[in-house]
Amino acid sequence: MSTVAKTKCDIALFGAQGDLALRKLFPALYQLDKANLLAPQLRILGLARSPIDQENFLETVRIHLRKFTPTSEIDETVLARFLSRLFYFRIDFTDSTAYQALHQKLSETDNPLICYFATPAAIYGEICKNLHNAGSINKQTRIVLEKPIGYDLASSKTINDAVAKYFTEEQVYRIDHYLGKETVQNLIALRFANSLFGSQWDHNHIDHIEITVAETIGIEHRWGYFDRAGQLRDMVQNHLLQLLCLIAMDPPNDLSADSIRDEKVKVLKALKPIDTHSLNHHVIRGQYCAGSVQGEPVPGYLDESDSQNAQSCTETFVAIKAQICNWRWANVPFYLRTGKRMAEKLSQIIIHFKRPPHYIFAPEQRDIVENKLIIRLQPDEGISLQVLTKDQGLEKGMRLKPGPLKLNFSDTFHTQRIPDAYERLFLEVMQGSQYLFVRRDEIEYAWVWCDQIINGWLSQNARPQKYPAGSWGPISSIAMITLDGKSWHEDSV
Amino acid sequence: MSTVAKTKCDIALFGAQGDLALRKLFPALYQLDKANLLAPQLRILGLARSPIDQENFLETVRIHLRKFTPTSEIDETVLARFLSRLFYFRIDFTDSTAYQALHQKLSETDNPLICYFATPAAIYGEICKNLHNAGSINKQTRIVLEKPIGYDLASSKTINDAVAKYFTEEQVYRIDHYLGKETVQNLIALRFANSLFGSQWDHNHIDHIEITVAETIGIEHRWGYFDRAGQLRDMVQNHLLQLLCLIAMDPPNDLSADSIRDEKVKVLKALKPIDTHSLNHHVIRGQYCAGSVQGEPVPGYLDESDSQNAQSCTETFVAIKAQICNWRWANVPFYLRTGKRMAEKLSQIIIHFKRPPHYIFAPEQRDIVENKLIIRLQPDEGISLQVLTKDQGLEKGMRLKPGPLKLNFSDTFHTQRIPDAYERLFLEVMQGSQYLFVRRDEIEYAWVWCDQIINGWLSQNARPQKYPAGSWGPISSIAMITLDGKSWHEDSV
Repeated sequence: MSTVAKTKCDIALFGAQGDLALRKLFPALYQLDKANLLAPQLRILGLARSPIDQENFLETVRIHLRKFTPTSEIDETVLARFLSRLFYFRIDFTDSTAYQALHQKLSETDNPLICYFATPAAIYGEICKNLHNAGSINKQTRIVLEKPIGYDLASSKTINDAVAKYFTEEQVYRIDHYLGKETVQNLIALRFANSLFGSQWDHNHIDHIEITVAETIGIEHRWGYFDRAGQLRDMVQNHLLQLLCLIAMDPPNDLSADSIRDEKVKVLKALKPIDTHSLNHHVIRGQYCAGSVQGEPVPGYLDESDSQNAQSCTETFVAIKAQICNWRWANVPFYLRTGKRMAEKLSQIIIHFKRPPHYIFAPEQRDIVENKLIIRLQPDEGISLQVLTKDQGLEKGMRLKPGPLKLNFSDTFHTQRIPDAYERLFLEVMQGSQYLFVRRDEIEYAWVWCDQIINGWLSQNARPQKYPAGSWGPISSIAMITLDGKSWHEDSV
Repeated sequence: MSTVAKTKCDIALFGAQGDLALRKLFPALYQLDKANLLAPQLRILGLARSPIDQENFLETVRIHLRKFTPTSEIDETVLARFLSRLFYFRIDFTDSTAYQALHQKLSETDNPLICYFATPAAIYGEICKNLHNAGSINKQTRIVLEKPIGYDLASSKTINDAVAKYFTEEQVYRIDHYLGKETVQNLIALRFANSLFGSQWDHNHIDHIEITVAETIGIEHRWGYFDRAGQLRDMVQNHLLQLLCLIAMDPPNDLSADSIRDEKVKVLKALKPIDTHSLNHHVIRGQYCAGSVQGEPVPGYLDESDSQNAQSCTETFVAIKAQICNWRWANVPFYLRTGKRMAEKLSQIIIHFKRPPHYIFAPEQRDIVENKLIIRLQPDEGISLQVLTKDQGLEKGMRLKPGPLKLNFSDTFHTQRIPDAYERLFLEVMQGSQYLFVRRDEIEYAWVWCDQIINGWLSQNARPQKYPAGSWGPISSIAMITLDGKSWHEDSV
């Protein structure tokens, strides 16, 4: 999967005027072009309903590219070359009659086609059918599906079924952009290329694992959408469970997409169901009220609602004590935590190794004797390992000092930039490698687990707990981990 | 052992005009005074045969202190206070009649007495007897013995027996200044406070261990002394075997001196004897010839001899494949290497962890997949852990990159300086803690093992192998490790 060939293909980008396309997808494709990773003949068709012409389209892309790409990375020659690959094609995705003309356009080359659906998932099936009826798809066609795929298991199945009528699983690339992050891929290298970690990656050596994905932003203009979803659907069902799978999976026999995804599915299947009895002990649901984030006063979630649903019970925070019922992870809790309007923007995974079985240093230092592997996804991607050393200095005797052994990617690797997740993901689609994409069964097992929690909440009909914007979530999320004799790691790397 | 109390005592320094005292001992005591770790009433008696007076003595100490202490660390007030503790006492150590006058001087206080013998070991016993006969020693007296203690097991026993007539083992502090180095003590913290390392510290997880102590200096004015000793006696019997013991020992039940030393002795007893059959396979003996060190041409060992023994077979380099016959270290070779006139001044220990049992990355990267813990004693004390991460960059795919997780003491600990080994050792003697000192049985078992090698050489009557000054030793020392499918680590930390 690491060979880089410039793959001949065309990309049809459905939803080319949308926020994702303009903020992320075009900039990512530009970077690939700049890195000389796009084949010369590669075309990018921007598909959308907007009544604009090619020139307007290019202008919109150009403006957003400049906005979302650091100025130092804009190369005018590359930019011109990149824009010359772009073609705007106006189309109503639900109008089956419009696809003949699209087919004409697509048929100008015999490049294999990559269809990227940055549209609501509800119409994925319809687009597939229309493409099929127009004769635009063949065995070489690949489709890329943006999340969220469904709202629960049932709706997710409906969408995947609709797509599956026209495409085999090998043709489908389901995005979870967390999988495109360098640090997330690094989990694979860390675990399987390092015997030091690999040989300790189990309940004998690991005490517990924390996964935190904290955002400082609120909901704002996404309120209507978000209020129907909530933080569990928005973040846990996909990103946090994907991280959990990569951390917890058994070693795959090889790096092929299915070897990895088979192991991930095994983890999802082993997740202990959270039934109504354990719900309140193992899941904390929160909703932010007014507070201040990094010194700025911000409104509460309900205040942002323009009174559509001023009594909404939608959670903006969730903390879960997850358990994996298998040989590797018996009795090792996985504490997941994610929220909006938290104190810091911070995504990190912390592996807490067990303490040594016997302790021989100063009694008052007993509590600091713990090794932690900290994998930071953002803001600064990096890995650090907390070890204990002898404190230095004459008067220190054999006093211990916790200190990080650090690997900060931007320091250590003398490359200018960390590639964005979407760059990596586009490249993998072009190369036909699915290992960073989510297989259908992964999504479905994740929904099974999440649906049970959501249904539990519905049956309890309780309100989420309040937490002030700018805090680390409801106090009960701290109590949950404290009762287990542990605490959320809050130091910086 | 980490409580620091200013212990009331007097120090009687035998050999106060010697090189060690002037270069190391007085500067170390000055630093302790500067750090406010000497009791106000503590006196230092400088004992030597030189016909100088108190004023000459203070001037000599002052000159050497300024020479061997960075200017920024000289505090004139402290220096004056320190010099006011010093008293010169002229004495011939073998003249028993002179000890009555010394006793008078010592009796001016009832401070417990620390006798530091920086003299040839051959007269340790005689000094002890004379002190005893003069009534200068009691149960509180401690004696500090500098290495080398003997030339082989027999002479070492003679010396220790002579001392043991007057002192119990609890009163005897045998110096190996390597044990006073911060990084060496850090081995204890690293191994026993970190489950990540502690739980992997055995033949299941470690492939082999390297200990290198390389010097760039030659023999020069020490030729007469060194030629009778050789590198094995000068470096292996003490420093390298002490390092080996701290790395290899089973975890002590506590940090008491005897718990640690009991474990060290177990290692020495488990060293596989190197008999004449294995001698040439497991031990490489070298002697430098002319070459150049760091750009400067330097003469060979024999050229330095002023023709006393121009055919000397004394080794200036030795590499040993040592094996420890116990449950922890079965089949884990310990490669020891030490020499004069090597390419760099470098002391380091490298723990090579086993490779992961299965390999799933690019075939051509298989050889780089190895975790190493590198413990650097000098020139820059520090610890670094080599781990494999995913190489960063779009075109890299899942390529691996070895990179260090680093802990450099002078960076990480915001203290101005790393204490010299002798400062730590003086402090431990004053506090009555023996854990950084060598027990009699340690020395004796170390001699048993080394004597067999030396006797093997004598019986073979072969010349050591030549290596050019400024190289890493004879080619056969590389061949020895290469034949095992390994190599000496030569990267910098």
